[in-house]
Amino acid sequence: MTDLPHPTRDEIRIEAVLHALADPVRLQLVRALAEVPDDAEGMACGAVDLPISKSTRTHHIRTLREAGVVRVRPKGTIRFTTLRRDDLDALYPGMLDGILAAKH
Amino acid sequence: MTDLPHPTRDEIRIEAVLHALADPVRLQLVRALAEVPDDAEGMACGAVDLPISKSTRTHHIRTLREAGVVRVRPKGTIRFTTLRRDDLDALYPGMLDGILAAKH
Repeated sequence: MTDLPHPTRDEIRIEAVLHALADPVRLQLVRALAEVPDDAEGMACGAVDLPISKSTRTHHIRTLREAGVVRVRPKGTIRFTTLRRDDLDALYPGMLDGILAAKH
Repeated sequence: MTDLPHPTRDEIRIEAVLHALADPVRLQLVRALAEVPDDAEGMACGAVDLPISKSTRTHHIRTLREAGVVRVRPKGTIRFTTLRRDDLDALYPGMLDGILAAKH
């Protein structure tokens, strides 16, 4: 599997990030990714238990990736996904933690 | 002009807030509102110079109001708009400042 395109830190745009996060399913994925330890390889796309089809899940991961919210690394037949916390914290300090603090 | 409906703090939902902020025009309005001094009455809807029609502006302000991002107080024939910073900071600490820190 070839490498997938990701925006560089400089290419990330706040409107795209907010749009990517403004969906309940994507926000749930981001919440799950935020729980993955920093030294872990990432999360396999299917690891979060969501009542959605595989293609819908793939679509949501893609939206997050293209916005610069997550990084996806194919390894063999598995795609490992990690939150781009360093980039988001550098660009929008406090934003991600504020969003993750949301109770509703 | 009668009072306009606003969600209470408890009724504000993160997805709606993020959706409201994920638009370049609305984000520009929020940036301008963030500059209004706390002791000011608010900003008249037309005060921000944007290349959009009055009805489009009204639509965007409504989206922000219904999401709980701004408060709109009619006074005579003018609608004064203020950012609900206290509510947003309480619900999502750091989020708004992080978003306002965005250079792009």
